[in-house]
Amino acid sequence: MCQLMGMSANVPTDAQFSFTGLIERGGGTDIHRDGWGIVFYRGRGIHEFRDPQPGFDSDIARLVKVSGIKSKTVISHIRRANVGNIRIENTHPFVRELWGNYWTFAHNGQLRGAKKELALGRFRPVGTTDSEHVFCWMLGRISAAFCDRPDSGKKLSRLIADLSAQLNEFGVCNFLMSDSRFIYAHCSSRLHWITRRAPFGVARLKDLEMTVDFSAETTEKDVVTIIATEPLTRDERWHLIDKGKLMIWKDGRTQSF
Amino acid sequence: MCQLMGMSANVPTDAQFSFTGLIERGGGTDIHRDGWGIVFYRGRGIHEFRDPQPGFDSDIARLVKVSGIKSKTVISHIRRANVGNIRIENTHPFVRELWGNYWTFAHNGQLRGAKKELALGRFRPVGTTDSEHVFCWMLGRISAAFCDRPDSGKKLSRLIADLSAQLNEFGVCNFLMSDSRFIYAHCSSRLHWITRRAPFGVARLKDLEMTVDFSAETTEKDVVTIIATEPLTRDERWHLIDKGKLMIWKDGRTQSF
Repeated sequence: MCQLMGMSANVPTDAQFSFTGLIERGGGTDIHRDGWGIVFYRGRGIHEFRDPQPGFDSDIARLVKVSGIKSKTVISHIRRANVGNIRIENTHPFVRELWGNYWTFAHNGQLRGAKKELALGRFRPVGTTDSEHVFCWMLGRISAAFCDRPDSGKKLSRLIADLSAQLNEFGVCNFLMSDSRFIYAHCSSRLHWITRRAPFGVARLKDLEMTVDFSAETTEKDVVTIIATEPLTRDERWHLIDKGKLMIWKDGRTQSF
Repeated sequence: MCQLMGMSANVPTDAQFSFTGLIERGGGTDIHRDGWGIVFYRGRGIHEFRDPQPGFDSDIARLVKVSGIKSKTVISHIRRANVGNIRIENTHPFVRELWGNYWTFAHNGQLRGAKKELALGRFRPVGTTDSEHVFCWMLGRISAAFCDRPDSGKKLSRLIADLSAQLNEFGVCNFLMSDSRFIYAHCSSRLHWITRRAPFGVARLKDLEMTVDFSAETTEKDVVTIIATEPLTRDERWHLIDKGKLMIWKDGRTQSF
């Protein structure tokens, strides 16, 4: 299994605190040592960092922790391999371009039979994971349904919800997907979220001794949502997404569809 | 204008020496300070690093220099912006997936009118450069011609040579493109290359005081080709690619087609 972390914010925000907590589980406080990756959107472009090495002992992860990169949309993943060897092409998040946007996808779970049964369209996996296969399948279905981004966000969201429900039939399918503005989060077993806004307080990581006073780092207008397989902090109330539900965030706020 | 650097080798090789020389020109010894990027293939997967900051003063570039990542195929670029703002989505190399391989592209030159005249297929630019536009155009043409990778490398090489000749009509088109195994290098004004093999000697960078004794870093069987806009070393004989010519390397060796 693996663990996921995503961030959606209404202003470019440093994800260092959450990434530091997550990456410690990449062989330090937990067993997800088979590689890791993170994508930071900066406007339409992306910074991506990944490594098949354990995250808690990766030079690239150390750089990411101190890089100070600010972003409104972040997706990250630490891997414990089941399907697919420990190789860089099997690290999440996976990235593809659709409609002139980079789409990214990170997955936690196993989808038995999905590679055989879900026929691919124009997007093909580079590695051998079931996760990359289902991402390519979803994008193929989305691009077949809409030549260009549909004017209605609702239509797209409903299609993604429908595809997620189909994936759920194959097993465990917790995922985070983004097109740069939206984060689509599907929960089939465990996926938590928390939204922080004024008045901001102090938070303490679960996995190592690190505390941050968000009131010193933010303005009153900031809205920042963190999504994670398991809560990253103590002393805060995280919400569990209902099983089988797709949630969507943009600028830190949930979107209805 | 910009500068390009590529490496093709028959064994995974550290590109640190060449990258160190190139990145110094990103605001240090030369004016290409509007961002940089590098893609290292590791098998089918890629490590990519990019930054809109000047390369000679980038924390991410400093990490790349000491990372010790070994690769058989590398493409790198330092940018001096003309078309397209200084933003991360406009940094080269650009990356797209085709036939289950990551294709990368870096370009030096300006192609006037290309964005208007070259109609895109299924690949779309994320940023605003003419370079990304022509990469998307080429991949669109390649994917329209071949649903899957053709058995004959010759057919694909001839199509890429034909597309390159069409691009040449729009202005200056020096580029490096790779699908992980091959590097396609087109020269319309300046692009140099050098192949190093046994007996290996000592080389000295042009742009800063750094010398390497390749005989201490290699075995007798190693073949390593470096391609660069301007020669990166003194005391070695670099070759200029003929104007209008496409050259192809695999495992460090030139390929005929």
